[in-house]
Amino acid sequence: MDTYEILSKIKSPDDLKQMSYETLEKLCAEIRAKLVETVSANGGHLSPNLGVVELTVMLHKIFNAPKDSIVWDVGHQCYTHKMLTGRYDKINTIRTENGISGFPKRSESSYDDFNAGHSSTSISAAYGIARAKQLCGDDSYTIAVIGDGSFSGGLAFEGMNNAGRYNKNFIVILNDNKMSISHNVGALARYFTRIRLRPGYLRTKQRIDKVLMHTPVVGRPIRKVLVNSKSRFKTLVYKNTLFEDMGFCYYGPVDGHNLHELNNALTAVKKQKEPVLLHVVTTKGKGYHFAENDPKNFHGIGRFDIESGEPLSNTKGFSACFGDVLCRMANKDNKICAITAAMKLGTGLDDFAKGYRERFFDVGIAEEHAVTFGCGLASRGMLPVFAVYSTFLQRTYDQLLHDSATQKLHLVLAIDRAGIVGEDGETHQGVFDVSMLNSIPNVTVFSPCYFEELELSLQSAIYKCDSLVAVRYPRGTEGYRPTDLTSTGINYDIYGNKNAKILIVTYGRLFSEACKALKMLLADGIDVCILKLCKIKPIDSRAVKFALDFNRIYFFEEGILNGGTAQMFWRQLAELDFKGSYKTVAIDDKFIPQATVKSSLKQLSLDSEGMYSVIKADEK
Amino acid sequence: MDTYEILSKIKSPDDLKQMSYETLEKLCAEIRAKLVETVSANGGHLSPNLGVVELTVMLHKIFNAPKDSIVWDVGHQCYTHKMLTGRYDKINTIRTENGISGFPKRSESSYDDFNAGHSSTSISAAYGIARAKQLCGDDSYTIAVIGDGSFSGGLAFEGMNNAGRYNKNFIVILNDNKMSISHNVGALARYFTRIRLRPGYLRTKQRIDKVLMHTPVVGRPIRKVLVNSKSRFKTLVYKNTLFEDMGFCYYGPVDGHNLHELNNALTAVKKQKEPVLLHVVTTKGKGYHFAENDPKNFHGIGRFDIESGEPLSNTKGFSACFGDVLCRMANKDNKICAITAAMKLGTGLDDFAKGYRERFFDVGIAEEHAVTFGCGLASRGMLPVFAVYSTFLQRTYDQLLHDSATQKLHLVLAIDRAGIVGEDGETHQGVFDVSMLNSIPNVTVFSPCYFEELELSLQSAIYKCDSLVAVRYPRGTEGYRPTDLTSTGINYDIYGNKNAKILIVTYGRLFSEACKALKMLLADGIDVCILKLCKIKPIDSRAVKFALDFNRIYFFEEGILNGGTAQMFWRQLAELDFKGSYKTVAIDDKFIPQATVKSSLKQLSLDSEGMYSVIKADEK
Repeated sequence: MDTYEILSKIKSPDDLKQMSYETLEKLCAEIRAKLVETVSANGGHLSPNLGVVELTVMLHKIFNAPKDSIVWDVGHQCYTHKMLTGRYDKINTIRTENGISGFPKRSESSYDDFNAGHSSTSISAAYGIARAKQLCGDDSYTIAVIGDGSFSGGLAFEGMNNAGRYNKNFIVILNDNKMSISHNVGALARYFTRIRLRPGYLRTKQRIDKVLMHTPVVGRPIRKVLVNSKSRFKTLVYKNTLFEDMGFCYYGPVDGHNLHELNNALTAVKKQKEPVLLHVVTTKGKGYHFAENDPKNFHGIGRFDIESGEPLSNTKGFSACFGDVLCRMANKDNKICAITAAMKLGTGLDDFAKGYRERFFDVGIAEEHAVTFGCGLASRGMLPVFAVYSTFLQRTYDQLLHDSATQKLHLVLAIDRAGIVGEDGETHQGVFDVSMLNSIPNVTVFSPCYFEELELSLQSAIYKCDSLVAVRYPRGTEGYRPTDLTSTGINYDIYGNKNAKILIVTYGRLFSEACKALKMLLADGIDVCILKLCKIKPIDSRAVKFALDFNRIYFFEEGILNGGTAQMFWRQLAELDFKGSYKTVAIDDKFIPQATVKSSLKQLSLDSEGMYSVIKADEK
Repeated sequence: MDTYEILSKIKSPDDLKQMSYETLEKLCAEIRAKLVETVSANGGHLSPNLGVVELTVMLHKIFNAPKDSIVWDVGHQCYTHKMLTGRYDKINTIRTENGISGFPKRSESSYDDFNAGHSSTSISAAYGIARAKQLCGDDSYTIAVIGDGSFSGGLAFEGMNNAGRYNKNFIVILNDNKMSISHNVGALARYFTRIRLRPGYLRTKQRIDKVLMHTPVVGRPIRKVLVNSKSRFKTLVYKNTLFEDMGFCYYGPVDGHNLHELNNALTAVKKQKEPVLLHVVTTKGKGYHFAENDPKNFHGIGRFDIESGEPLSNTKGFSACFGDVLCRMANKDNKICAITAAMKLGTGLDDFAKGYRERFFDVGIAEEHAVTFGCGLASRGMLPVFAVYSTFLQRTYDQLLHDSATQKLHLVLAIDRAGIVGEDGETHQGVFDVSMLNSIPNVTVFSPCYFEELELSLQSAIYKCDSLVAVRYPRGTEGYRPTDLTSTGINYDIYGNKNAKILIVTYGRLFSEACKALKMLLADGIDVCILKLCKIKPIDSRAVKFALDFNRIYFFEEGILNGGTAQMFWRQLAELDFKGSYKTVAIDDKFIPQATVKSSLKQLSLDSEGMYSVIKADEK
């Protein structure tokens, strides 16, 4: 017998429509168990999924997807949605190569209305869907489900500002778990707390109803007056939220783990003729005590042991190394500030936040602000370091260009998760930052391979550069390091036989792969040399000159080909009249789907075997 | 005698401190006259500058810049500020080559605290400055001046959300002129109207004071109670604005053209111990009746005749052509939608807005939302066209990548002001969009040279492409067209002698320059051929094959070198084993300062003479 007796039989949301509350409660418990089982095995997002079980079940019970559209913000809370919309059988494949995605994907199901991965897009996307429906005479509902953390992103505000003029079947559900990824910040967070503590319209209404129905003689007439003057009554109870100012009708707060309350609220908002904001309060990590007690650490996690809640692997990675180095530097220099956009833990800034509280700025999910704010700090002589995942840095192209580079303000970017990231897939690959930064004038970029280089790069970025400067490093930890490699420099290094005819050029962690490839090639009698760049913009002209003497050059780059470093290197070679052959292996104008990092690198011929094969093939 | 008797003598804001109101009024009149004179001669931003004359004068009277910091949002309202801070003598050089900038520039004056040009950055930047000051023990004031239009940008909201936690000498001045560039949109605009119409705290207070002081017996005691319970009193009068919800103390609305009111308000907010939002109501274009009656058209303008208000030149440009074509297409196809981010006039969408109201979306200054919203429309089968200036498209790198390209949603970008834009300088040059788009997978880019190609490109973008597609065209109108050039295609064209040994490759308006260069070279007996690309991503492989047979190839590109089309073309040539010489002339990792378009192109060797010289030099 399947442990998931009810859940395993659900083929579509239709199966929920007639379920009793008792059965629904059991279903929710089964879903939670399945979520914990799945994420413990595959890694993924746990706390956010545990928080929206009841909300998702009731959304699919009350609304009619896929006719009604549900747009999940960020998407790291969509696992229950996937299980209820025909993908229960595949949930074990989530976040694996060729398996289902950990995020909504239009190509996967008609129930997934809009792809996500980055935060704060849902209101804008849902509003676009709603207006398209209106133009086509389709009067179904469109619902955006967005967390309070995502609400701090400017795009969410832009969406609200636009959608607030609209008046048709448009619902924003604020999933308020008092967190973005770690604890939420900003004035808005305080504001949410304030309105969260006020008696909700619906609950108050029920309470008043109950009292009045039992009040002799005058009770029923008063109730009638109240019901008929609904808007006035409502005004008294919940008027004047920020959302009303923005054109939304506000409902809430509602207990997001109470099926009855959710039923009443969702049924009520369906009847509204204005755009509605429904405020649902949930508990992140609900139902799995390790996650409930420590939702931050169970937000996005690797594989873990269900009984103990302990992760199955725990090696010190680049993020932790960065955090340590920055703390040491901040200890000696009180100009150093750290900025994060709701990624304190992920970027290794936990200790910095504790040790240097005054100089630590968690700005919430608001990368654009992080950059411009950092530029403000820099304009007054501080030394701001913005630690950010490569993929989220994409949000800040204009701020980097317009606020930092044009006025040469010295902002340091610590770019984490640079390169292939693995199971999160397309939307999270850190393969665009180099091209993005290469196009911006006045920028310096370091891409270290080992911890010691990360430290040297950071030192150089903070004390030897001006204008915008970036230090980028991969997810995870150091790779292979040949025993005969002594200290490494921050501009470039040479490894292997300088008199070989073949040169591999690369940077970042691919150097480890190149060293292994060199061994394999040597074993076949093919002698190669490796030029390892650490400073990839601008490229040291001595490194280019060194490469001139080789017959065949191979540049392996873990990033997008167009605008990447391989092209910059090639141009500089050509300007020196290089006449040998030059081959680039990089990501050629395509997105990289989810898989392990190892598997992706292999498919891109960017692992040692791929490098070996590419070079070996030309020998024939 | 100088017509600007008072103004011309002001060397620094200190000169304002002791001025009487009468003198200040005269000064304001002089400033207005000087603004009209200057902009009529140099072009620039008129209406926004006319709107903040009194506000700027009083800011500099009440605060002590540069100790106190004033951050101007966008910066197109800073001319008065420049005149009052030692740059009156240079105001005639504004927006000219080597003259002063039309925007705040740190390199120009210590009174300019932060560079601008793009909107909605001021709160974040000012907050960074304020926090840096705090860390350094500096208790001076920091003031962000931001228009209601800029407030619709998400970055402004992110800034407010963060600064709302702060409590030291931080002031945001909302310059509410009921406009962004054309009329303001969104729920927030409606909200501003609502609070604008409420009696202001200050005025109410004065009125009540006056009444109470003249009320016998009980008047004074009541007043005393009110004054002492300031917070309660305030609560009654102006509690519950959206700004208070965000942690700001709200003051206003204040008449931004009344020096006394401004004096009282600015003096009052100086005393606050929380972050303050001061709501100042101004009239865009104030004092020059043509601008006051039509502030949109006098927002940013070319040279004009002061007496008639008429522009000195008025040729039909690419924007108007785009607008016409899109209207014609929309007339036949009701799936076509147009989106603008507060640039209806600038992008030529005026007629579309009138003719196809239901399908026209002005989202306010909110480019990120424009893209994600457009993706929502596209996901439901609509054909959205987002018309946007190249420089502002930089804001949307992540939305283009994450919301459009990864899920292959068919959003069409009409990129106006692509290439050098001239007098607005560094922050507005449209030279990054090609590199930006080249780095994104699944994107098609057209860069037409003539109106007929713009139409063909748009047709192709809308009906023959999927995923993200861009049509980019320059500011201004068509350039030189050789009489023997017949119809042109949308992938590529060949002009000149196909058997020549020298090939010029280029795209967009530089083709006109190349044709002129060809004539000059022919006159010198140098035979060249021109390959004109219109579809620049992906490049048609037949065009690359055609180039293979030439000995020397010159690629001229009006854009940033790194990641640009010249590099893509070269790589494809190299893959076909091209052995000739290849030279690229483009913008090599630098910003382009203000100058006329003609002068900038000349300095970059991208005009006909530059092309001629580059090619001729290699002949020797």
